[in-house]
Order: sequence, then C-alpha cells, then structure tokens
Amino acid sequence: MFLLKARDGAARLGELVLPHGRVETPVFMPVGTLASVKALSPLQLREAGARIILGNTFHLALRPGGRVVQQLGGLASFNGWRGPTLTDSGGFQVFSLRERRKLDEDGVTFSDPHNGDTLRMTPESSIATQQQLGADIIMAFDECTPYPASYEQTESSMRLSMRWAARCRKAHEDGAQHLFGIIQGGVYPQLRRESLKALLDIGFAGYAIGGLAVGEPKEEMLAMVKQLGDEMPQDRPRYLMGVGTPLDLVEGVARGVDMFDCVMPTRNARNGSLFTGSGLVKIRNAAYATSEKPLDDACDCYTCNNFSLAYLHHLEKNRELLYHQLASLHNLRVYLSLLERIRAAIAKGVFAAFYTAFKTSPLAKV
Amino acid sequence: MFLLKARDGAARLGELVLPHGRVETPVFMPVGTLASVKALSPLQLREAGARIILGNTFHLALRPGGRVVQQLGGLASFNGWRGPTLTDSGGFQVFSLRERRKLDEDGVTFSDPHNGDTLRMTPESSIATQQQLGADIIMAFDECTPYPASYEQTESSMRLSMRWAARCRKAHEDGAQHLFGIIQGGVYPQLRRESLKALLDIGFAGYAIGGLAVGEPKEEMLAMVKQLGDEMPQDRPRYLMGVGTPLDLVEGVARGVDMFDCVMPTRNARNGSLFTGSGLVKIRNAAYATSEKPLDDACDCYTCNNFSLAYLHHLEKNRELLYHQLASLHNLRVYLSLLERIRAAIAKGVFAAFYTAFKTSPLAKV
Repeated sequence: MFLLKARDGAARLGELVLPHGRVETPVFMPVGTLASVKALSPLQLREAGARIILGNTFHLALRPGGRVVQQLGGLASFNGWRGPTLTDSGGFQVFSLRERRKLDEDGVTFSDPHNGDTLRMTPESSIATQQQLGADIIMAFDECTPYPASYEQTESSMRLSMRWAARCRKAHEDGAQHLFGIIQGGVYPQLRRESLKALLDIGFAGYAIGGLAVGEPKEEMLAMVKQLGDEMPQDRPRYLMGVGTPLDLVEGVARGVDMFDCVMPTRNARNGSLFTGSGLVKIRNAAYATSEKPLDDACDCYTCNNFSLAYLHHLEKNRELLYHQLASLHNLRVYLSLLERIRAAIAKGVFAAFYTAFKTSPLAKV
Repeated sequence: MFLLKARDGAARLGELVLPHGRVETPVFMPVGTLASVKALSPLQLREAGARIILGNTFHLALRPGGRVVQQLGGLASFNGWRGPTLTDSGGFQVFSLRERRKLDEDGVTFSDPHNGDTLRMTPESSIATQQQLGADIIMAFDECTPYPASYEQTESSMRLSMRWAARCRKAHEDGAQHLFGIIQGGVYPQLRRESLKALLDIGFAGYAIGGLAVGEPKEEMLAMVKQLGDEMPQDRPRYLMGVGTPLDLVEGVARGVDMFDCVMPTRNARNGSLFTGSGLVKIRNAAYATSEKPLDDACDCYTCNNFSLAYLHHLEKNRELLYHQLASLHNLRVYLSLLERIRAAIAKGVFAAFYTAFKTSPLAKV
C-alpha cells in the first residue's frame, strides 16, 4: 500500500495506494472529528488540495455510533467525501480525557463528556468500531503517554500499548483496511527503540509516532522524530500524529516523516488566527478594518482571491457564519500548498535548499 | 432599467438592467443583512442561482458603517459578490425596533441594540448611507406601519412616509443607483391607492409594496397585493418587501409582483426547517438518523446531490458548522429554482396551469 518514489536526504516522496484512492506523500490530513472538517464541504476540501481526511473513533463511536456509519456505507460515504480516510483509535482520548477515564490491563472506561454515560474501549472494540467506520487506514488502540512522565511510568505505559498493539493486530481482519502501529516511549530513546522493535515484530502496514506534541519541548520532540526516522523501515509509511505548526511539518519531513494531521489550521482559523506568507494575522485587529488587501496576496485560495482583510475582519467581528468557511479554507490551503511545495522540492532533489529557505520565512514563525 | 418582456394573466416576465448586471424577473433576492448571506459564499450563491442580493442599511450603517463600505468600493465589491445588490432604507427597523426608537417629522432616533449608542436616521441620511453602500437599487426611507393599526393611525403614518418619499427623491442624485418608492397604507384600499398616487406623482424607478407580512391575515395581504398589482404602472418593476413562503411568492407573481426578498429560507435552514418537494423536513427528527435518502431527490443542489438525511441530521444535532452551509444552500436553491420554474411558465404562457398545480403541491404548505 506504500510506494517509496524518491529520497532526498532523509526526506521521502511516496504514494499511499488505498481503497478510496491514491495519496502522494508527504501529506497533511485535515481533521474531521465528527465526520466533518469544521465549516468546510468535501468539495471545498478537495479544491483546497486535501486528499485524505481524518475522523476520530472515540467521538464517532458516541455520535452517531459506528453502526450508523456502517449502515450508511462507511465514513467516506457517510460524509460525502468519497476519498481516502484515516481513523485514529481513541488512544489520544486516553490522554486528553484522563480525568474522565479509568484504565486497566484490558482497556479503558470513559465517561462520555456529553451525558456522563460510560463508554468502554478495548483494543478489540476500537478495531471493531474502526471496521464499522470503514476508513482506509486504521490505528492501533494505545495509551498516549502524558508529558512529563518518569522513565518507569513511560516504560510501563509503553509496554501496555505494545500488548494492546498485539491484540489489535490479532483483532484486525486482513481486509481492505490498513492497520498502523503506534510507537510510544515518551522522550526516552531506549523506550522508543523498544517500542518500535515490538511493533516490527508484530508487523503493521505503517508506523506512527504517538505521544509527541503533548507538551514536551520542541527539541525533545524533534530528537525523537529524528531517531525514529532513522530507525523505522523505509518500505512503510511513517505518520507523526497530531503535529503541528507549518515548521513542525517541514522539520518532520526533514527527518523522514510521510504523514501529518492536526486541528491547528482549522481551529486557529475559527479563533481568528490566520497563517500567511508574511506571518500570523490576528484578523480581529482593528488595523484590518479598512484594508483592501487580501489576507495573503501570494495565496491562491478562494478567500484570498475574492475578499479583503476588511471583509474578513467585518465577518469575524460580527460572528458571521461565512467567516468560518473562508478562514478555515485559507488556513487549510496554507498547509496543503506547503506540502505541495515540499513534495515538489523532494522530487527535484532540492529539499535541503527548500528547508533552509523555509526556516527563515515568516510562515516558520507562526 | 426595466424591460417588460411578457405577460401571462397578471404575471409578468421582465429584466432589470442594473449597473452590476442584468436580472431576470420575477426574482427572489437572498438577504445578506451584514453584507453576507449567512453561511454562504458568493460562489455558492451564484451556483444556487442567485442573481441579486439584499443588504440592510440600518445594520450596515452600524457595522461596519457606510463610509467603510464606500472606501472598499461599495457593497458588491466589499462582500465579493460583484453582482447586483439592493439595500433597504432602514424603514423596516422603524417597525421592528419600535421599542428602541423615537419618531418625529424629520426622522427617527434609534438606540443601537448592540451598545445603546444612538443612531439618527432621516430620509436624507438614509439616502446618503445608501449612496455610500452603493447598491444598484436603493429604497426610500419610510415608516413601515405596524399591524393592527386604525385607519387614522395608518393614514397619518402613510402620509408621513409620502412626505419622506419626496425628501428621498430630492436627496437622490440621478446617478447609477435606482431609487424605489414604497407604498404604505396598511390593509386599507383607499390609503394604498392614495400612497401609490403620491409616489407616482413624485416619480420613482420602481415601486415597492411595504408594510405587509407584518402580522396581518394572509387574505388581507393578498387583497392588497392584488389591488396594487392592478394599479401599479406596467413599465416599472414591482417589489413585495419581506415576503415570504414559497406559496406567497407564487401568489405574488400571480398578482403581478416582480421582486421578493425574505430571510425565511436561510433562517429556517439554520433552525432545522428544510423545504422540499414533499413538504417540510424538521431535520432534528430522529426518524432521519439512519436515512440514506437525500433531503429531496428532485432537488439539484449540492447538498441533495451529495449528502444523506442521516448526515444532515448528524451535523445539525451536533452543531457542526457545515450544517449551516449545506442547509442554507438547499433552502435557497428551493426558492431560486421555484422562481426559475415560474419564469419558464410565464415565458411559455402556461403560468395559470403552473399556479393551479403548485397550489396543491406539498411545497405550497410549508
């Protein structure tokens, strides 16, 4: 399911061959938590350059439920996207909802943040739900280890995730869906190495780096990515989960990562933070109230082609619904066009120069 | 600025020739209160069949202000629509905000519902603001008479509006903008006749029927529209303000009306009420939670072509922003395609048959 087409230093150009289509890598996957990338239609996503989108198993299991999505033909049919999708496993919620869950050897019991109902997730039930959701790529259920955590805590947590990974692999039917394992081990090189080895022994279609971007210093994150980029098998796709800023993406590619996802472009858009080639634009700023200029005159998105800063400021200030559409579309296009430029640079063998130039650009500072 | 191209009974087929483009009539104008039809982009509006959109002078005068819109090139440039627009005058807010305003012979003092600031509007200031906003069609400032009102109250209110109409006409520079007069007179035939005569004596580019759809029984509304449809000049466009349901539009056309506007399709969409060829769909209804069917299989809109009732139900129930886009797009398309069918029927001289068939259709009951 993965074709490695070129290498340029540690950076890789590849292609995911998936049931719902082919996806060039490195790729950024917009996050559609509840089977919808907030404020954007599938048509808008495609026109912005999205080729694979993500759904969250934990949230979808609660609303509308795996069975409903299955009845409606699976995620890509349910939400009208009809292209490749990936579902996470619920492992991130083991971390993010840790005040609302109890963990044991067999699995995790959550209390639903919406109504207090309990939801039990195990490696087997996560895989079963992900089979109902029907994404092209599904993820092993794990415990995303928090930061900071001691060596002993991290080791214990990682080893539990590896036992769960084996159970996920066993529960996974070798059908059209591709199951990825998730490397844990916090910021401890030896634990990351042990985790990768455990997953390689089990054998997965791809390997994800989990448990980063959870509060650790950026240098620690990049050190872990570097180590794993060097050690992960070349013939499988590598996915850095939940990352990150535009610079994080470039740094990840430079260390051999193929896939990224993050709510940042869409969430920040809704909060009024817009990314441009000149840096961050806080659209609420009164300075934009009368500016005829587009948000980013180098951007080719619908928003920048048709609207002024003044209009975006007006929409945001007055809570007009159209603001969310135009802002989300732009921020996503910034991410997706960045990945296009990254792929072009690798294809031409000039990624090192691209990397150096990008690091000093205003977009690297947002 | 108006070409009458065909008549079929009292129904009329025509064309508005405006600075920003030509518009076939009868036409429905989506409402973009704050220079945005809520949740929809100009591209989506155009693809749904919109050809002219409306802005509200009172609201735009407060946010972002006429001067800002003028600096940005006028309404159609400011909001990226770049097609024909119409602005109301603020007269409707004399009615709808009557708890927050004081009226005198010269004009109206409002207290801003957002911050309590006062806003003074006179016939002259309304025209001046509408000149700043730069719409293709602008409206005389009037007092929209409430319902119920006695004959004497209605007569006094209408005569004030006629004095204001003369001041508006005087304040209006004969430039690119077309100024319409607004007929008042409540549900009293004699007062409506006097108001129309007063406006004809002043002379306007078009004539609007104001002060209806403010709570009066439907038969009284239709009786007034019938009378005025018979008495208004054939060579000028006729605009029935703030109306209405799909059936109201068909009834209006049958009585000689050319132009309509209403928040109903977009507001009802946001509230979960969707219009279809089979009648009203309350999308929140649990019966839709697993329905694979489209909202309306006879509808050609993006929403109906790509999404199931189950997905729309899921989006609405979980307050996903995408819901507003998809729902608003559909309801607006229902209105705009209804007007397309009306125009086609008049062009073929079969409007009477269309009218009879429509009256018994489920869409006539929403």
